[in-house]
Amino acid sequence: MKIGVIGVGLIGGSLALSAREHIPDVELYGSNRSAANLRKSIDLGLIDQPLEQKMIKQMDVILLSIPVDTALSRLSDLLDEINDNALIMDFGSTKAAICEAVALHSKRGQFLATHPMAGTEYSGPAAALPDLFTNKIQILCETHKTRPDLLEWAQNWFKKIGMNLREMDPVEHDQHITYVSHLSHISSYMLGKTVMEKEKDQSTIFDMAGSGFSSTVRLAKSSPNMWIPIFKQNKHNISDTLSQYIDNLNNFKTLLEAEKFDELHDQLLEINGIRQILEGISETTNNKENGK
Amino acid sequence: MKIGVIGVGLIGGSLALSAREHIPDVELYGSNRSAANLRKSIDLGLIDQPLEQKMIKQMDVILLSIPVDTALSRLSDLLDEINDNALIMDFGSTKAAICEAVALHSKRGQFLATHPMAGTEYSGPAAALPDLFTNKIQILCETHKTRPDLLEWAQNWFKKIGMNLREMDPVEHDQHITYVSHLSHISSYMLGKTVMEKEKDQSTIFDMAGSGFSSTVRLAKSSPNMWIPIFKQNKHNISDTLSQYIDNLNNFKTLLEAEKFDELHDQLLEINGIRQILEGISETTNNKENGK
Repeated sequence: MKIGVIGVGLIGGSLALSAREHIPDVELYGSNRSAANLRKSIDLGLIDQPLEQKMIKQMDVILLSIPVDTALSRLSDLLDEINDNALIMDFGSTKAAICEAVALHSKRGQFLATHPMAGTEYSGPAAALPDLFTNKIQILCETHKTRPDLLEWAQNWFKKIGMNLREMDPVEHDQHITYVSHLSHISSYMLGKTVMEKEKDQSTIFDMAGSGFSSTVRLAKSSPNMWIPIFKQNKHNISDTLSQYIDNLNNFKTLLEAEKFDELHDQLLEINGIRQILEGISETTNNKENGK
Repeated sequence: MKIGVIGVGLIGGSLALSAREHIPDVELYGSNRSAANLRKSIDLGLIDQPLEQKMIKQMDVILLSIPVDTALSRLSDLLDEINDNALIMDFGSTKAAICEAVALHSKRGQFLATHPMAGTEYSGPAAALPDLFTNKIQILCETHKTRPDLLEWAQNWFKKIGMNLREMDPVEHDQHITYVSHLSHISSYMLGKTVMEKEKDQSTIFDMAGSGFSSTVRLAKSSPNMWIPIFKQNKHNISDTLSQYIDNLNNFKTLLEAEKFDELHDQLLEINGIRQILEGISETTNNKENGK
């Protein structure tokens, strides 16, 4: 089986490692807009050889793991080029635009839109990890539009990797992911910006980062090449959610300045409920051990 | 040597574990406003027995690890009570108010104000960790006001635990810590609030949390009992820094809505410099590998 990875970075490279481990006799081809990173992905054993344009039609599966704007602009042409039994999957953080772009394509059945809930703040082939997807959620969109045999192959592979599959409407996906991912990235970027502006002494940031900053600012290390296209495609959801975040911060500031500490205490106590949600425990069994 | 831990929680309990490991023949006494947690701290072996009020004068060292408001209100009385060779140290996240409160106390030399750059989002004795302070920064304030023999003992113990000592003026401490810790906590609390308001489906938060949310929202699990007094004592610094954070978020939103993506890209690229700062690499050697 021949798999072509377009964009052998953190996600594409980790997918390549997972393919090598779980798919017998797989041959891995890859491309990268950076020649240096392409060489590195061969040196690291992520792929066997470069994926040239003319080889697209020989691939059984194409994994599209490039920024969401270039993925969007290339998908239709790639569908035109692949052979009639090949499957293309994308792994981007927005799903509405890409699903809409190929909705009427004659080869729509050969495409599967996915979004793995996995990643790190690092990018490039050297950031690829063999177990990046183990026990992670893989979101699949519009599975009814993918040809059943190709869908089944993809689902089996993801399950072998250890992923838990969940179906979601692409428009709903883009809303949900705004809350839990895109907003987190913006809050983290702006936190990094604020601290770098206020704190001119870098050694003090370094010395004191263990007090909470290092985890909240982690995502501010993420590549703008990946994130700007996401913010662009998901602009309306992000703008709306960002407004609410800013409102909440302004409200906190007003309560603080008015010294309404009882009200703030109750608010924070309610927010503590996020612990149970993250641990997968329903609200009804909340154990408010931090009770006032 | 007799050590009394007032507030055997995450910090006090971890200090007790470190004392037991590094101080020969130590006897550990402790108190807790919760009787259940006091019993738990004995069961867990953090302390040997309860610290009663009448035993204060028998202690060689008192570790004050309670919320910053109660620490502030109790410190003067405790100084009155201890014997003439005992040392009291506090470990709170604000330093200006407590240093000011005892500035003129006749036993000022028997107090040392500290703030360890260590912690987790959990609280209570069960959250105590034996290696919480290993390789962490310990901030000491106004060391020239502490009696040299008592200061030396404290410094030696912290070094034995594996901490790196740094001196800081208490007023400057409260400014620096606002940027790297207090703002992080507020941004995380308000992120948790926003997501809980927008996303009514808890299972979706749970499923998608791996996409960035879990690390940015980690601090939102922190106890309001600890944090409200900190916000109260450090109100002015926090209000000022929060304003700048909100300004940066509003500016991001304006650029997003105006589709000024090149400007946003440059901004995020600059923020990526936080990676080098967190790794302790100076700005001059920045390797902007995410170049556009």
